[in-house]
Amino acid sequence: MRPSGRKLDELRPFSIEPNVNRHAEGSCMIRLGDTQVICTATVGERVPPFIRGTGLGWVSAEYGMLPRSTNIRMRRESSAGKQAGRTVEIQRLIGRSLRASLDRVSLGERQITVDCDVIQADGGTRCASITGGWVALRLAVNKLIRAGELSSDPLSKPVAAISCGIYAGQLVLDLDYAEDSDAGMDGNFVMTGDGQLIEVQMSAEGQTFSRQQMDRLIDIAGEGIAKIADMQMASANA
Amino acid sequence: MRPSGRKLDELRPFSIEPNVNRHAEGSCMIRLGDTQVICTATVGERVPPFIRGTGLGWVSAEYGMLPRSTNIRMRRESSAGKQAGRTVEIQRLIGRSLRASLDRVSLGERQITVDCDVIQADGGTRCASITGGWVALRLAVNKLIRAGELSSDPLSKPVAAISCGIYAGQLVLDLDYAEDSDAGMDGNFVMTGDGQLIEVQMSAEGQTFSRQQMDRLIDIAGEGIAKIADMQMASANA
Amino acid sequence: MRPSGRKLDELRPFSIEPNVNRHAEGSCMIRLGDTQVICTATVGERVPPFIRGTGLGWVSAEYGMLPRSTNIRMRRESSAGKQAGRTVEIQRLIGRSLRASLDRVSLGERQITVDCDVIQADGGTRCASITGGWVALRLAVNKLIRAGELSSDPLSKPVAAISCGIYAGQLVLDLDYAEDSDAGMDGNFVMTGDGQLIEVQMSAEGQTFSRQQMDRLIDIAGEGIAKIADMQMASANA
Amino acid sequence: MRPSGRKLDELRPFSIEPNVNRHAEGSCMIRLGDTQVICTATVGERVPPFIRGTGLGWVSAEYGMLPRSTNIRMRRESSAGKQAGRTVEIQRLIGRSLRASLDRVSLGERQITVDCDVIQADGGTRCASITGGWVALRLAVNKLIRAGELSSDPLSKPVAAISCGIYAGQLVLDLDYAEDSDAGMDGNFVMTGDGQLIEVQMSAEGQTFSRQQMDRLIDIAGEGIAKIADMQMASANA
Amino acid sequence: MRPSGRKLDELRPFSIEPNVNRHAEGSCMIRLGDTQVICTATVGERVPPFIRGTGLGWVSAEYGMLPRSTNIRMRRESSAGKQAGRTVEIQRLIGRSLRASLDRVSLGERQITVDCDVIQADGGTRCASITGGWVALRLAVNKLIRAGELSSDPLSKPVAAISCGIYAGQLVLDLDYAEDSDAGMDGNFVMTGDGQLIEVQMSAEGQTFSRQQMDRLIDIAGEGIAKIADMQMASANA
Amino acid sequence: MRPSGRKLDELRPFSIEPNVNRHAEGSCMIRLGDTQVICTATVGERVPPFIRGTGLGWVSAEYGMLPRSTNIRMRRESSAGKQAGRTVEIQRLIGRSLRASLDRVSLGERQITVDCDVIQADGGTRCASITGGWVALRLAVNKLIRAGELSSDPLSKPVAAISCGIYAGQLVLDLDYAEDSDAGMDGNFVMTGDGQLIEVQMSAEGQTFSRQQMDRLIDIAGEGIAKIADMQMASANA
Repeated sequence: MRPSGRKLDELRPFSIEPNVNRHAEGSCMIRLGDTQVICTATVGERVPPFIRGTGLGWVSAEYGMLPRSTNIRMRRESSAGKQAGRTVEIQRLIGRSLRASLDRVSLGERQITVDCDVIQADGGTRCASITGGWVALRLAVNKLIRAGELSSDPLSKPVAAISCGIYAGQLVLDLDYAEDSDAGMDGNFVMTGDGQLIEVQMSAEGQTFSRQQMDRLIDIAGEGIAKIADMQMASANA
Repeated sequence: MRPSGRKLDELRPFSIEPNVNRHAEGSCMIRLGDTQVICTATVGERVPPFIRGTGLGWVSAEYGMLPRSTNIRMRRESSAGKQAGRTVEIQRLIGRSLRASLDRVSLGERQITVDCDVIQADGGTRCASITGGWVALRLAVNKLIRAGELSSDPLSKPVAAISCGIYAGQLVLDLDYAEDSDAGMDGNFVMTGDGQLIEVQMSAEGQTFSRQQMDRLIDIAGEGIAKIADMQMASANA
Repeated sequence: MRPSGRKLDELRPFSIEPNVNRHAEGSCMIRLGDTQVICTATVGERVPPFIRGTGLGWVSAEYGMLPRSTNIRMRRESSAGKQAGRTVEIQRLIGRSLRASLDRVSLGERQITVDCDVIQADGGTRCASITGGWVALRLAVNKLIRAGELSSDPLSKPVAAISCGIYAGQLVLDLDYAEDSDAGMDGNFVMTGDGQLIEVQMSAEGQTFSRQQMDRLIDIAGEGIAKIADMQMASANA
Repeated sequence: MRPSGRKLDELRPFSIEPNVNRHAEGSCMIRLGDTQVICTATVGERVPPFIRGTGLGWVSAEYGMLPRSTNIRMRRESSAGKQAGRTVEIQRLIGRSLRASLDRVSLGERQITVDCDVIQADGGTRCASITGGWVALRLAVNKLIRAGELSSDPLSKPVAAISCGIYAGQLVLDLDYAEDSDAGMDGNFVMTGDGQLIEVQMSAEGQTFSRQQMDRLIDIAGEGIAKIADMQMASANA
Repeated sequence: MRPSGRKLDELRPFSIEPNVNRHAEGSCMIRLGDTQVICTATVGERVPPFIRGTGLGWVSAEYGMLPRSTNIRMRRESSAGKQAGRTVEIQRLIGRSLRASLDRVSLGERQITVDCDVIQADGGTRCASITGGWVALRLAVNKLIRAGELSSDPLSKPVAAISCGIYAGQLVLDLDYAEDSDAGMDGNFVMTGDGQLIEVQMSAEGQTFSRQQMDRLIDIAGEGIAKIADMQMASANA
Repeated sequence: MRPSGRKLDELRPFSIEPNVNRHAEGSCMIRLGDTQVICTATVGERVPPFIRGTGLGWVSAEYGMLPRSTNIRMRRESSAGKQAGRTVEIQRLIGRSLRASLDRVSLGERQITVDCDVIQADGGTRCASITGGWVALRLAVNKLIRAGELSSDPLSKPVAAISCGIYAGQLVLDLDYAEDSDAGMDGNFVMTGDGQLIEVQMSAEGQTFSRQQMDRLIDIAGEGIAKIADMQMASANA
């Protein structure tokens, strides 16, 4: 029995509210249960040194949490003077995920920076960031297309993510904080809307898991992601 | 004529939505025109070294901006590795302001940390942070009182703030970003709801101002603050 | 009764010794009671990015304290790895103050950096830094004028500063450390020699103050600054 | 055809030389093709705050590369002033992997720190670090057992890791640098010697991969890890 | 011929003014030609961890330069966020030198921190810091003795330092900046007043030197230090 | 009697193994007793700003220690966020020493970076780094010569270093860690193979030493260095 009473493969209620920020080229607020993340996409003409002059585009991501997004107040990373290892890991994951389904030639030599800021956390913030980040990216690209700055669309398929894990011996989808903090193994899956894999991360803490368990988790993750991708498309077209 | 069409001493539309965060002891979202700030108050038993054993309480504040809260994306301070001078100045100001109307004996030896995070900026973020921060603090103290942890109320009068300045040669109240970035002088006033002064900061950039101008600005600031304090009381009692 | 026996509106003995540094384009040692600050002005052809190509000049300031300038030895900021918030606040204030009475067109596209280093502290170091910093700036500009590098004088009126506050319930001018550390409110006023305002900062700690008190403090500050400005002119012409 | 001429599922020549450091409680040099990593295990009585008083042990890991371990000299992280995101990610992965097959009760309240320093790099350094790190850990634990400090053995099964990926459209095992820098997807698998999973990381850059590809890679990784685990046991018993 | 017209083994004019700081337990201003250093000694009851409970005392030193102490303005180390390698080297040297002639048992378990801040630099600042630092230390110890806190004097003999080098092919004493910046070899000698050696540092840049040259430099350094030590004693007894 | 049973002027067994790194232009492993240092030389076309356009070359050095190279595990400097003062001192010393016998005109406008990484430490690591660093540099320069990139050889004579000190009242050569940590004075001498001096550092801790002692130490250092230089030449020509 899950603390929330959900079925093993049941997602939490979720929604994506587009265009929540008046300054950003693309933005949304994604809510996954009590997890809330503001995602913005900023289009810049300035690109990182390693692509200068190549004509190719780039998408990078940054991630942060408000100090009291969590149950116990976290120290502000700007005050600590550096980003925690977990933060760096997550923003690298978001960037890699968004680039997997990006046509860098069509984007042209520009950089889009996706910021994912967690307003309230209840597990699954990195997955919500990828899912919402893609919507913000999609909206920013739409704006470029409408402005006539792109001749073809660099984004083919939606990119979405969901967590899975082993909680109380059971294989469960979309862990909330109560489950996540007690899970023997947890994983994150990033896929395209049509079920191609982008990133698989499964990680046991203090125990191991079997090939059969892994296979089953990928199955239920794929089903969850298909639902999420529909929501992404709906909100990006709203 | 102001860019927004407002009268010289007219505040922007504003609202305070209490209890926006499920984790914090007190919280609100304050909106002042297009400026939006989430304020949370965290009650902690751990106090700074300089008050340990004194029986006195403490209130401190931290301030941050989401990278795309501004028109041009700002570099994330956690990534830069330190807080900008402006950030440090503002959080010292918020803390000082909230302590001015605080009875540290009644609060007892505990610390309340007020976090003010700007979701969207259009001028006046430090004033909105003080005003909203007081509401979050008020709500957290209410919770302590209801829990029977305080024998008397450490907060007597609301603390609110508003900006003033000289824009296009005119004395104006509550500057938005378009005015602020072009003002020859801008000031921030922090007062209690009944018009006592807590902090006066008036600062010219590249010019000077007269005693008469200063006197007039304090007058209109006092009127603005009286309206804001009513709103604070209403939302804290909601 | 003030600890020093001074009258309420009486300045401490003060002096400005020009040209104390053989390397700097302008320099002075300012003494305000037991407070001693070395101010130097460095003229550089290199300007900050935001004015490059504009033809306009810039004045910035830096501030520091020797570790044993204070009664209790302070940790060296270079060893702590960063400047304290108070330091950053003060150097921003000094720069802003010196720019208020500066004609940036006449200065031309160059930067003058004013360093204010506190050799011994007894209250009022930021005000002494502004007052002495202006003299160092004046001397450096004089040198540029003598060298024929400026066609008109970018400095019109002297800029000086003095502190005021409420000590033991009394309104007092030019607080020394014994008063400052015990004041319920303290303020700093920056004005031109002819009484125009540049910066007003009044800040209560744990209490509030009235409009009448504020008005009276500005009065006595203006009288003090007039005397200080005379001294500035005398030493810059010496 | 692989650049090295290896078969698709063929490991590079590898060896583990135990006891290469006279100071450390456990140590080895692991060579995997031209990749060379020195692993040391340090036993300490001091434990991280979160396990103090619990009676449970802890294993953590740190990772570094000599500046010229790589083809192009890398900047020294101590000189850059911080560890790169990649470094932090890798050391978290090593620690988690080694803890997965650790009985923290048997270890007792002590911490073992495993340092993995890359002397020469040619791809697969994180996998070599996990594999060699386990041997250093095993040797350090053996020493504790011989000294009578542990009543039961906290390490049950060897932990080993190997990389896989898609190179030139082919599924390959144990990528060297030439393959790794050109792979469309690369993964790392951490398993116990008997084939239980600890960590799966598969990550596409700029493309996606299918479920079938993933399944096949896990198959060949499992075969590789079985061979590596035999070598670990042999060298730890040498 | 030396730029200053001095003889090869001639010191610059020098003076030591004691008690220049009202807060410090011991202090002096040392002037060596145009080099000026303020040295203060701070007595603290708090000692570094490695001597806690040993009953032994400690002397440490810190060193800094005002930004415009030099001909070209130097970046403030607090703003750069760290002390330069040169700074760290010098403060370690000063501390070691002052401890060489210190009876740590007689001092008792306390720490004296000697701060050497260069107000104006013209070569030889590290030597001036050692020489002046010893006087500040001597004065602080005198104060402890007068207060009855020490039963025997922990300082036996004065510690002084002087620079030497090879300039324009000649062996010279006490290099000023013009010589120092052009010297093929420069050295620093720290000795007690009676000619025992504490530290010898001779360092060639881009060339080598002979044993005979080294021997001669030590001879003239010893003569210089004897004169300096007399001045130290005179000023400490003033 | 020395802990190792060596005669007072006896070197530890030592060896230099050239070409230990497949990536670096020059490299060696130097072993001096139980001290082991990997030295690599990296040739770069990019030079520091201060020599750009001069046509002159530069050699710089960096130094590091593996965390468990020492008896007690040291904190990793990359994790501490900065290099210790000792590290900075040593790398400046290595660079200066290698430049002393370098013809910067013959090298041409390029930079060679010498990295010295201590794999295992038992005293004398800075001397081993200089000695091994010269061999790595020699091998890198040989490669440039063979490639026809240099018209004359910029390296004339080998540069080697050895430590000396006063241990248990005796003058000893090549201190190991047991001696070094207990020495009343220790020194490092850097010389060319034919006995010219490059750097002399003699440093007493808590005591002083005489001119006669210094003279004797330089004598035995010279003899040691002559033997070391022979080994350098042999390994560089191997």
